[in-house]
Amino acid sequence: MSENDVKPNKELLLDPFGTTIVKDYERLYKEFGIQPFKPLLQRIKNPFMAMRRGVIFGHRDFEKIIDCMENGKEFAVLSGIKPTGEFHLGTLMTAKEIIYFQKQGAQTFYCVADIEAYEDNKIPFEKSEKYAVGNIADVLALGLDPKNAYIYRQSKENRVKDLAIIFGRAATLATMKAIYGERHIGLYLSALIQVGDILLPQLPDFGGPKPTVVPVGVDQDPHLRFSRDIAQRFRRKYGFELPSATYHKIIKGLDGSPKMSKRSPMSYFTLDEKLEVIANKISNAFTGGRPTVKEQREQGGVPEICPVYEIDMFHFVEDDDEVKKTYYDCRTGKLLCGEHKKRTIEHVLNFVREHRKKREKYIDKAREILGIG
Amino acid sequence: MSENDVKPNKELLLDPFGTTIVKDYERLYKEFGIQPFKPLLQRIKNPFMAMRRGVIFGHRDFEKIIDCMENGKEFAVLSGIKPTGEFHLGTLMTAKEIIYFQKQGAQTFYCVADIEAYEDNKIPFEKSEKYAVGNIADVLALGLDPKNAYIYRQSKENRVKDLAIIFGRAATLATMKAIYGERHIGLYLSALIQVGDILLPQLPDFGGPKPTVVPVGVDQDPHLRFSRDIAQRFRRKYGFELPSATYHKIIKGLDGSPKMSKRSPMSYFTLDEKLEVIANKISNAFTGGRPTVKEQREQGGVPEICPVYEIDMFHFVEDDDEVKKTYYDCRTGKLLCGEHKKRTIEHVLNFVREHRKKREKYIDKAREILGIG
Repeated sequence: MSENDVKPNKELLLDPFGTTIVKDYERLYKEFGIQPFKPLLQRIKNPFMAMRRGVIFGHRDFEKIIDCMENGKEFAVLSGIKPTGEFHLGTLMTAKEIIYFQKQGAQTFYCVADIEAYEDNKIPFEKSEKYAVGNIADVLALGLDPKNAYIYRQSKENRVKDLAIIFGRAATLATMKAIYGERHIGLYLSALIQVGDILLPQLPDFGGPKPTVVPVGVDQDPHLRFSRDIAQRFRRKYGFELPSATYHKIIKGLDGSPKMSKRSPMSYFTLDEKLEVIANKISNAFTGGRPTVKEQREQGGVPEICPVYEIDMFHFVEDDDEVKKTYYDCRTGKLLCGEHKKRTIEHVLNFVREHRKKREKYIDKAREILGIG
Repeated sequence: MSENDVKPNKELLLDPFGTTIVKDYERLYKEFGIQPFKPLLQRIKNPFMAMRRGVIFGHRDFEKIIDCMENGKEFAVLSGIKPTGEFHLGTLMTAKEIIYFQKQGAQTFYCVADIEAYEDNKIPFEKSEKYAVGNIADVLALGLDPKNAYIYRQSKENRVKDLAIIFGRAATLATMKAIYGERHIGLYLSALIQVGDILLPQLPDFGGPKPTVVPVGVDQDPHLRFSRDIAQRFRRKYGFELPSATYHKIIKGLDGSPKMSKRSPMSYFTLDEKLEVIANKISNAFTGGRPTVKEQREQGGVPEICPVYEIDMFHFVEDDDEVKKTYYDCRTGKLLCGEHKKRTIEHVLNFVREHRKKREKYIDKAREILGIG
């Protein structure tokens, strides 16, 4: 069932949290061995918003992490950001996940993937350095505790580069082409460096082997599979635990496209844009609404295909009941798109205003952490 | 004309220095753009033994280096060793070349290619470290002045690794496959790291762009071509001069095979082997001799195909006239193989004995240079 086949019906009240899109992800379960996250939910004492709502829909080996959280065992969380621009809703999700796991007691690693930004996006290091300062200020403003986190740039972390060199011998051309396609050697090298990032928490400098969760968007799974393969091959030498992962869904583009993309400025916004621009982009967003008010009142809207609903659910409405109400009100034709957008814009702008105030205070701290004078 | 076509003739006295094998190298001139070295010889005030004798038979852009030597301009020399074992006659040649250029005033770089040893030969770093100490003691004993040289291991030289990362973006899969064949990513990465080595002398830390000569065996030309290509691509960013190279012939295996190889222990010896083993290997060497003494007296020997003659000419007979005499005496049937071998064994063992005494004294210095406690 694809999104376009959804036959909305006032009587049929689907689970507002993620049931609709799960079918699109079934291939991932079957072909790639990603496990569904939902069955684990009841074992997690204090699940993160995106877990409760099915935004985090899949995992690999996450049972190990639950065991650590339940029994106070040592574990780590690692994820990062490619410093190619300002924070947007994708990087926001990963940052929140990291912060969640930090609060659950994880040894925390946040990586600025500036080598990947160079190899994949041609961003020179001088330029990515500027983005990195802002990105780190963002993640600090969101609540990452820098005292209990290792925040670093790939280009400055020799241990990661040295792991990439060591792992290189196990990376066949066939594997690289299968995962990443026909790319230049720099891109393959940056993939190896990302494996180095993912296994960094398990080096003796950080206390040795331990379960590590890598929360990512599902589009990052190839990196995870590659990392697990490499961890297996170098298990005897380093004692690596295979890294675990959680997978969140990719938020839809505001223009109705499957994902937000820099190539379509109307599909996304950054936390850095002017408030009126953000408001305008949401205001112009594609929705699951009907051609006429009359039809919408009669048939209800289609929140399953609506990016405005996703913005609420992924990020800006804290209360689950409020999200559910929005879902049902849309489905039953009570809530029209104009009103919904107005409310969402308010939520988003409130968040952005507050966030910016905090962020401003963290710029110097971010420079200090990154060692930028 | 291949070596097997040589029709020895007492009357026909060929140039003992390199004319015979040049034809085998003509493809290199035509197809790969290597230039013949001989025309440059008269411009070099104090040519190295291997230059005078045609062992160094080709070059790229060596005019630039002559210009520096003639006019006291700044230039660099870089070469290195893959620490996969003890010094042999191949590494000995490169070491002597480096020392020659150091004496001509070059800023001198000697690289221990331990990353290549790992990626290409599967030698773990712990093991290559041991070889490296011996190798550096060898090169110091041979006369490299450590006060005026930068001697380093790739695995410890972050500037080289960082250059490899930067160059990676310009290394297409097609290029790598054309030069190195279908290999794992680690091997391609070690090729990029070698480019980093070759361009290291031109970084601001070492005084910025300058002509650099890389003296190598002709089998290393793919690395040089790749390095020149990368230097060209990053010329605007770094101001690189395209690196120059000299190419020496590859010494024949003692068993008559085209090159000495670890896979055939009787084809080569190391400076570390027992003296009687070295003597025995030379004693058992293939030669250009005739089936019977009578035939040899009548027809003369074939020094062109004789590894014992090459040992003299490449390394162990300092005096050009003495080499020439050996050549003519062999050619005219005056010198028989037994006598020649006896003389060569004496030369080699004298050298090895002396060398070992000196080398012993440099072990601690080598450990210090490599930062090995």
